[in-house]
Amino acid sequence: MGPVLVIGTGLIGTSIALALRRADVEVYLEDEDPIALSTAISVGAGSALPVDAVPNLVVVAVPPRHAGSVLAMASKRFTTATITDVTSVKAQVLTDAVNAGADSSRLIGGHPMAGREASGAASARVDLLDDRLWVLTPTADCPAESLREVYQLVSTCGAYVVEMTPDEHDRAVALVSHAPQLLSSVLAAQLTDANADYVRIAGQGLRDMTRIAASDSALWTDILSVNAKQVAKVLNNVVLDLSATIAALEAIATGDAAQSATVNATLQTGAEGRSRIPGKHGAAPVEISLVGVMLADKPGELARLFTAAGQSNVNLEDVRIEHLLGRPSGLVEISVRPDSVATLAAALRECDFDVRS
Amino acid sequence: MGPVLVIGTGLIGTSIALALRRADVEVYLEDEDPIALSTAISVGAGSALPVDAVPNLVVVAVPPRHAGSVLAMASKRFTTATITDVTSVKAQVLTDAVNAGADSSRLIGGHPMAGREASGAASARVDLLDDRLWVLTPTADCPAESLREVYQLVSTCGAYVVEMTPDEHDRAVALVSHAPQLLSSVLAAQLTDANADYVRIAGQGLRDMTRIAASDSALWTDILSVNAKQVAKVLNNVVLDLSATIAALEAIATGDAAQSATVNATLQTGAEGRSRIPGKHGAAPVEISLVGVMLADKPGELARLFTAAGQSNVNLEDVRIEHLLGRPSGLVEISVRPDSVATLAAALRECDFDVRS
Repeated sequence: MGPVLVIGTGLIGTSIALALRRADVEVYLEDEDPIALSTAISVGAGSALPVDAVPNLVVVAVPPRHAGSVLAMASKRFTTATITDVTSVKAQVLTDAVNAGADSSRLIGGHPMAGREASGAASARVDLLDDRLWVLTPTADCPAESLREVYQLVSTCGAYVVEMTPDEHDRAVALVSHAPQLLSSVLAAQLTDANADYVRIAGQGLRDMTRIAASDSALWTDILSVNAKQVAKVLNNVVLDLSATIAALEAIATGDAAQSATVNATLQTGAEGRSRIPGKHGAAPVEISLVGVMLADKPGELARLFTAAGQSNVNLEDVRIEHLLGRPSGLVEISVRPDSVATLAAALRECDFDVRS
Repeated sequence: MGPVLVIGTGLIGTSIALALRRADVEVYLEDEDPIALSTAISVGAGSALPVDAVPNLVVVAVPPRHAGSVLAMASKRFTTATITDVTSVKAQVLTDAVNAGADSSRLIGGHPMAGREASGAASARVDLLDDRLWVLTPTADCPAESLREVYQLVSTCGAYVVEMTPDEHDRAVALVSHAPQLLSSVLAAQLTDANADYVRIAGQGLRDMTRIAASDSALWTDILSVNAKQVAKVLNNVVLDLSATIAALEAIATGDAAQSATVNATLQTGAEGRSRIPGKHGAAPVEISLVGVMLADKPGELARLFTAAGQSNVNLEDVRIEHLLGRPSGLVEISVRPDSVATLAAALRECDFDVRS
């Protein structure tokens, strides 16, 4: 494959370029910011676009607001190249591109499901896309050769294709990413003028539910604005369900105990929805059991714990640490398959850990 | 102190009894279920209530629906004892108790902020309450001697008192626990009839936000029903804020780009609210930095990682594992103080770990 032109040498664009270079694909780079461009070149992501060079594939990796016009420009500049992008919203961006003059037959939208807390070419990683899902939104009449090129881009980056229509993609990310972001923010917003003692008694549930409320508000404003219609749809459904639950709670508060059934139904439907989220590695949810260990919070204790766990030869599925108030200690919850609980617990007790399963 | 009578030998009641026995306090136990009672006695939580025994303090640890009547009965049976409870809702339970004939002057509501996934006397732990906050809701005219006894109960269990009024407590738990539970359930409920591919591209944010949606629906129906009024109030505020955000999104979708400012304000207020949640150990939030490590998901790798981290002598504030799709690997994010990043990263690289900070 190649040569490939990457327009926009931020985190994602530069990481894609690095992955292509790893496979010896010829990569050209462009960025309107000369510092971003030279950073990308300096980390080995490719070379500046030579005059008269003709890429086979153009990857547009610029923010959602600019993606449409940059896609259209690329389509006009390189009249035989396949054009794709990595924007986290699809329908609006592709419509913008076509309205601005892009040749829709060579345009295949994309969205790799990866990111980091950090941004910019300097934070790029050759393996950022390894094992990630990468949504592609080809049109029905898309040339097989163009589609093949974009599939090859994805696999060269170590990722896996999921095909959707642009609308499907936007509904999907609205459901699993954009609406949850706003729900987290709105919940966290309720804490701003709460009594300090109220916030002080918060447990792990509230921490988990408000973690993403700390995300970059400027970036998220862009994403949410470009996918505004689909996000509003999901949130309208959330408000409908919440309102029904609130009505039931208000009825209960005034004596209509039978409305508890409505609350119970909401909780049960929630548990059912939660069970649909895949387990680790995208596999079906697996049955796991928890082994709790009360740990002293000092240097070395986690190391001692995981050394002991490693010697038990049990595979740890997950680890969570719940910190307690008042003294340096924490409850570590280790997730393992149910048939490994006894082995792990015995190994840890052998090493004098305070095991609580 | 003592003798203390614990009525209800479930997880919390039995754990309190064990903590009191640890301090050599005389403990009597009662439970309408003879098996629960004999289990509690067999784990050393105390002895069955002798005929004519006169406890100084009675701890009622029964489900919210029954707490009021059991408190009233205890008040009538033991006319000189201080009476407290451990119910996760306060105003309704205390009103129920007084309406059923409890002597309000000897009645001090309580709620220890602790729990486990498991329930029952067999899951009880002598240190379940260690380092936990324990809300007490004494009335203004509560006798000093009664209050002293309940404070002593809390400290003997290793916990710390936070005083609130019953209404304050119920508003607090509605805000930090009950409303988040329903929000998580309602969000997860949106997944029940979603396309499998939509759910498949879900990331860590959705996982975190729907974790508590897997909680016991029967128990939570009880809790939410008894605190229905306060939970409805919080959720009404959430719906108000969500509705304003939805209106802004719908305006953006029809071309009113200026409404992005409303979305941005929601996100910023959320970030501000999130920042109010205390850091570990109830301390003020501390500045932390992340050190990412890409790990092979096989037995021993976490052990090797934490052994290396331990040898760096850096204190690990927290650990998160983000699992990737398609192959056995995972990104481990270790939280440390900013001035420890370089030390830890160097130590891990020295041991050939794929460090990404």
